[in-house]
Amino acid sequence: MSEFKLHEDRFFDTDPTVRRYARELYNEIKDLPIVSPHGHVDPAIFVENKPFPNPAELFISPDHYVYRMLYSQGIDLEDLDIPQRGGVRSGKDPREVWQIFADNYFLFNGTPSGVWLNHEFNIVFGIKEKLSGENAQNIYDEISEKLQQPEFLPRNMFKNFNLEVLSTTDAAADTLEHHKIIKESGWDGRIVPCFRPDAVTDLSNPDWRKNIEELQKVSSVEITTYQNFIKVLEERRAFFKSMGATSTDHGVLSPYTTKLSEKDAEDIFSRALRGESTEKDAVLFTANMLMEMARMSCDDGLTMQIHAGSNRNHNKVIFDKYGLDKGCDIPQSTEYTNNLKELLNTYGNNKNFTVIVFTLDETNYTRELAPLAGHYPAMKLGPAWWFHDSLEGMNRYRHSVTETAGFYNTVGFNDDTRAFVSIPARHDVARRVDANFLAGLVARHMISMAEASVIIKDLTYNLVKKAYNL
Amino acid sequence: MSEFKLHEDRFFDTDPTVRRYARELYNEIKDLPIVSPHGHVDPAIFVENKPFPNPAELFISPDHYVYRMLYSQGIDLEDLDIPQRGGVRSGKDPREVWQIFADNYFLFNGTPSGVWLNHEFNIVFGIKEKLSGENAQNIYDEISEKLQQPEFLPRNMFKNFNLEVLSTTDAAADTLEHHKIIKESGWDGRIVPCFRPDAVTDLSNPDWRKNIEELQKVSSVEITTYQNFIKVLEERRAFFKSMGATSTDHGVLSPYTTKLSEKDAEDIFSRALRGESTEKDAVLFTANMLMEMARMSCDDGLTMQIHAGSNRNHNKVIFDKYGLDKGCDIPQSTEYTNNLKELLNTYGNNKNFTVIVFTLDETNYTRELAPLAGHYPAMKLGPAWWFHDSLEGMNRYRHSVTETAGFYNTVGFNDDTRAFVSIPARHDVARRVDANFLAGLVARHMISMAEASVIIKDLTYNLVKKAYNL
Amino acid sequence: MSEFKLHEDRFFDTDPTVRRYARELYNEIKDLPIVSPHGHVDPAIFVENKPFPNPAELFISPDHYVYRMLYSQGIDLEDLDIPQRGGVRSGKDPREVWQIFADNYFLFNGTPSGVWLNHEFNIVFGIKEKLSGENAQNIYDEISEKLQQPEFLPRNMFKNFNLEVLSTTDAAADTLEHHKIIKESGWDGRIVPCFRPDAVTDLSNPDWRKNIEELQKVSSVEITTYQNFIKVLEERRAFFKSMGATSTDHGVLSPYTTKLSEKDAEDIFSRALRGESTEKDAVLFTANMLMEMARMSCDDGLTMQIHAGSNRNHNKVIFDKYGLDKGCDIPQSTEYTNNLKELLNTYGNNKNFTVIVFTLDETNYTRELAPLAGHYPAMKLGPAWWFHDSLEGMNRYRHSVTETAGFYNTVGFNDDTRAFVSIPARHDVARRVDANFLAGLVARHMISMAEASVIIKDLTYNLVKKAYNL
Repeated sequence: MSEFKLHEDRFFDTDPTVRRYARELYNEIKDLPIVSPHGHVDPAIFVENKPFPNPAELFISPDHYVYRMLYSQGIDLEDLDIPQRGGVRSGKDPREVWQIFADNYFLFNGTPSGVWLNHEFNIVFGIKEKLSGENAQNIYDEISEKLQQPEFLPRNMFKNFNLEVLSTTDAAADTLEHHKIIKESGWDGRIVPCFRPDAVTDLSNPDWRKNIEELQKVSSVEITTYQNFIKVLEERRAFFKSMGATSTDHGVLSPYTTKLSEKDAEDIFSRALRGESTEKDAVLFTANMLMEMARMSCDDGLTMQIHAGSNRNHNKVIFDKYGLDKGCDIPQSTEYTNNLKELLNTYGNNKNFTVIVFTLDETNYTRELAPLAGHYPAMKLGPAWWFHDSLEGMNRYRHSVTETAGFYNTVGFNDDTRAFVSIPARHDVARRVDANFLAGLVARHMISMAEASVIIKDLTYNLVKKAYNL
Repeated sequence: MSEFKLHEDRFFDTDPTVRRYARELYNEIKDLPIVSPHGHVDPAIFVENKPFPNPAELFISPDHYVYRMLYSQGIDLEDLDIPQRGGVRSGKDPREVWQIFADNYFLFNGTPSGVWLNHEFNIVFGIKEKLSGENAQNIYDEISEKLQQPEFLPRNMFKNFNLEVLSTTDAAADTLEHHKIIKESGWDGRIVPCFRPDAVTDLSNPDWRKNIEELQKVSSVEITTYQNFIKVLEERRAFFKSMGATSTDHGVLSPYTTKLSEKDAEDIFSRALRGESTEKDAVLFTANMLMEMARMSCDDGLTMQIHAGSNRNHNKVIFDKYGLDKGCDIPQSTEYTNNLKELLNTYGNNKNFTVIVFTLDETNYTRELAPLAGHYPAMKLGPAWWFHDSLEGMNRYRHSVTETAGFYNTVGFNDDTRAFVSIPARHDVARRVDANFLAGLVARHMISMAEASVIIKDLTYNLVKKAYNL
Repeated sequence: MSEFKLHEDRFFDTDPTVRRYARELYNEIKDLPIVSPHGHVDPAIFVENKPFPNPAELFISPDHYVYRMLYSQGIDLEDLDIPQRGGVRSGKDPREVWQIFADNYFLFNGTPSGVWLNHEFNIVFGIKEKLSGENAQNIYDEISEKLQQPEFLPRNMFKNFNLEVLSTTDAAADTLEHHKIIKESGWDGRIVPCFRPDAVTDLSNPDWRKNIEELQKVSSVEITTYQNFIKVLEERRAFFKSMGATSTDHGVLSPYTTKLSEKDAEDIFSRALRGESTEKDAVLFTANMLMEMARMSCDDGLTMQIHAGSNRNHNKVIFDKYGLDKGCDIPQSTEYTNNLKELLNTYGNNKNFTVIVFTLDETNYTRELAPLAGHYPAMKLGPAWWFHDSLEGMNRYRHSVTETAGFYNTVGFNDDTRAFVSIPARHDVARRVDANFLAGLVARHMISMAEASVIIKDLTYNLVKKAYNL
């Protein structure tokens, strides 16, 4: 078998002119620090700073991109030892899990998971063969051994990845204990929280009442009224900000926004406390809370993020056994022009406010999102998200939004990942896609290399720092 | 006029690297047998095995792709001798029909019909000039003459096309007489039926009552209740399976699925028998029947196909005079995430079940269909369908679905055609598109040629045989 | 700084084969006259034929593409001296406005505005440096000086642009005074009106009552009934036709069409006259008026245009201060298959009728619009519109619609602009995109250069003249 080595021009257009420009632009930014303003890495790993247990638990069980694909081809999640509700595990030998993964590694050909994993294996872990059923156990050994070396401890990887800042995503009731310990530890890795109050703003969440009680525990006032609830949220935002947060995040099925009257809001909130709120209540309340969050952002300067359009936990069989975030979230058609109208009319002309909007429905790029971001000063367009955080997805994104929104109403890249080791791979792909896109503009004589050279740095580094106040 | 000869590298990217890989991959699979798991060729032509009557009746009157384009430019269907309701024909001289077609052949430039027709003329019939008004009558003569030769008889074309198996599409009440005769004839061409019960499951069909009577004629029990109706369908499926069927097909406007209670189903069915069912009844009944069909597929192993989103017979003027399938079907926006939820929750985790979903609404590729197919073990994504069975359409399909669904949650190509002679042309285009797509991945260093070489064979031959149990 | 000179191969694919064909095809049509069948240039400029006042008022204040982008980046419209309601201006020095624009000119990199402006500066005004903050005042001087030269007077530019005909867009009540003066002036520039009755057919327009009064002033019968209203519109269409109009235009949120009974129409109209019409009335009335307009077009032969899907004046803050057409129009999802069904069933098979449909929702290209245009003789597909009148937008358009609608169910290019000086730039871009698209087909051996050479002339010149009877 010939040595497995990622090509230095990978993902660039084959055309020699485009490729030459792309390489040149990529080389200008490939070593810039990584700014990761939105993601789901568990901060505990930097508190403990212990070796990752084994290759299976590093690459497979925490990555729903990986096991959803295996599951789609008839492999049971039990056979992959995916954590079930309550932390139950099947106890499958990680070597056997790894073997199944390796036997089916061909399934990831042409997918972003394949692209990232190849990068992680080859570049982060220095593996010199492409993973296959034959070499599975050898590569398992090789990675296992490396995981015990100091340079593969989380804090060292953080530094080796050239991470300038990493944002986590945290519930409103979170005490941010891990963030505090990291800060006080003397280690200088910058890890900031992000305020995500969905668990207490979404009345349709079956655990809402419990979540409110969790929130109560960390609050100074009693959450008996809507007014107090709002006060508590303001207080939590102030706390998050004091802990380094610069942004909030809101995951909603629909980005509908509307301000309820104080009375209507109180009525709905009180029904919810009594366990009597309706589906319609939940829709209105979420829409109202987006308005409240925008108002608070105008005051406290936290950048607001709206992630819309994911139909969560579509597969009830899996959800019942495995719980949230197991790859059963399916996008659905999403509307922004009418849904965001009230929010943008109320706060969108405010220069001190930034709202970054994400979509899983690419039809909105040219139709709704680029036109909105290309007009309202407050609104920026988030990068290609989730299923679209991929070579094709990011390429479509740039081709679709640039003409109407320009480059400067976008905000750079988000990795949005739980898989810490995939961070450099993901940013590298984004940088390559952007370099290649700009190279295409230069090759077609739309912009000059000098202009492209400025833009690529902005897309890689400056825009994200500005949009997230980092 | 220079000789008309299809270029051997047609449809491949111009870039020399991509083209070289594409040609190499294409050459590996161009001679693989054709598996045609879904289509509408009339099996009678293989029973009779008579020469096709003339070029106009071979290429024009059975092909709504062809005459819809001519009609859109103001040519009357009477002037093309398109069959009207009840078999009425205008009686236009086929030579005159052919002349009109040839005079307007430039309309097909850049269209899949043009691509297929050029292939059929040049490769199947060995025509050495591109069709035009000037050479129309000469080419008419040339084709007419060939049609009388033995090698252009249907059974010989079947063999010359290297067809391994051809599926027809047949109503639930069909006796499959032609299939039986073919089987018993000793001829070894494999032609299998496909069970399509739309005519008796769609209560909004104006002929529903008549269709039930047809079904009654071939059934052992009386169709007086929903329960008996279900029994009859099970019986018909068993009969189809005994005749070689490996799949069922369901054409629906919306892929909404929901299981009715036995009582509700009986009530609706009984209203329908009395001619009193409502529009809402029809919607619910279709949704219920998709659930029933999935259940039966879990039992009998027939692969289920769902074709959704065609607003049939949009042009009432044409429909009233010419009937079904005359090019007046227009796609409309279709939703899958919520509509398929009940079916996928109930049967989608079943490894013995395969449901292949098709769409006319390409916005669903990345948003809904690839994420669904990339998660549920039972669901596979059908190839680019109908208006999208084209160079651009298939190219968009691969670029859109591969990253999230991978290659292995797709099922190869379907020609879905009534035009028997177009089958090799259609499969050739699909093979070229796939070879070219894979060549692009290789050229951009995402996969190796060795990997591409495995994938192209799977896309061309293995996946379709597996998905349809052929 | 190196000299700024637009590359002669700009916007063509980098691939040498495609580029060579593209250049060849482009050269065949680049000097063909410009036919501009739909736009918003003020005809008054050709009456007065005075120099444009200064660069800021030529390039910035009339161009909402330009100031919407600047506004999105936090620049106040007051600082750009954008005209407010009632003609109020901030009075900002045009040199300062120009400086802001130049300082932010980088925002237009990769956008159609940037492409057009570069063309206007470099080719129309002969500016030899790319605009920047540094050279802003020099370029201001250079343009200002040229604006005083005879060749930059509107009528001379019209001739130098090689404009064969320019259509304006005019309200139903317009007396077409400017058109009359131009006609009688002896100047032979052909400027034709287009009948756009939205102001009197849209009951939800807050000025509807006032607009009816305006219409009354130019009408022979009293508009007290729906019947009379219809008579007045027929009369106005005849007047427009007598003044050279060959088309009508209809801007609607939804392209819903339905014919009301005479009684329902009278009832709604009478409620509207009393100021009592409802939202639902407005929806039905607009749908009904599209039917009436189609009926009239069948009679008087005026080509009908339907522009659907713009959610107008989305930003109330800007609308209240600045009024209509200030860049706050945002597209929304639009449905055609069901909405146009009644119109197309009633008039779509009529060979004497042409209805050209435009969309801001690109998802309809392959799903609804190409299939409809590829079937109904009366329906043609308008070019990529507004946000999609761009390199990417026009490219997506051709790639999406050609296979199903062919080239001959499209109608050439529309510039649809208020910015007179941008006309040659916009047509040049369209010609380059089409040449490049056809070059791609030739390079991939789908059509021959001889065929492409015919098609490019049709796309540039013949189709538009035919579709608009010009």
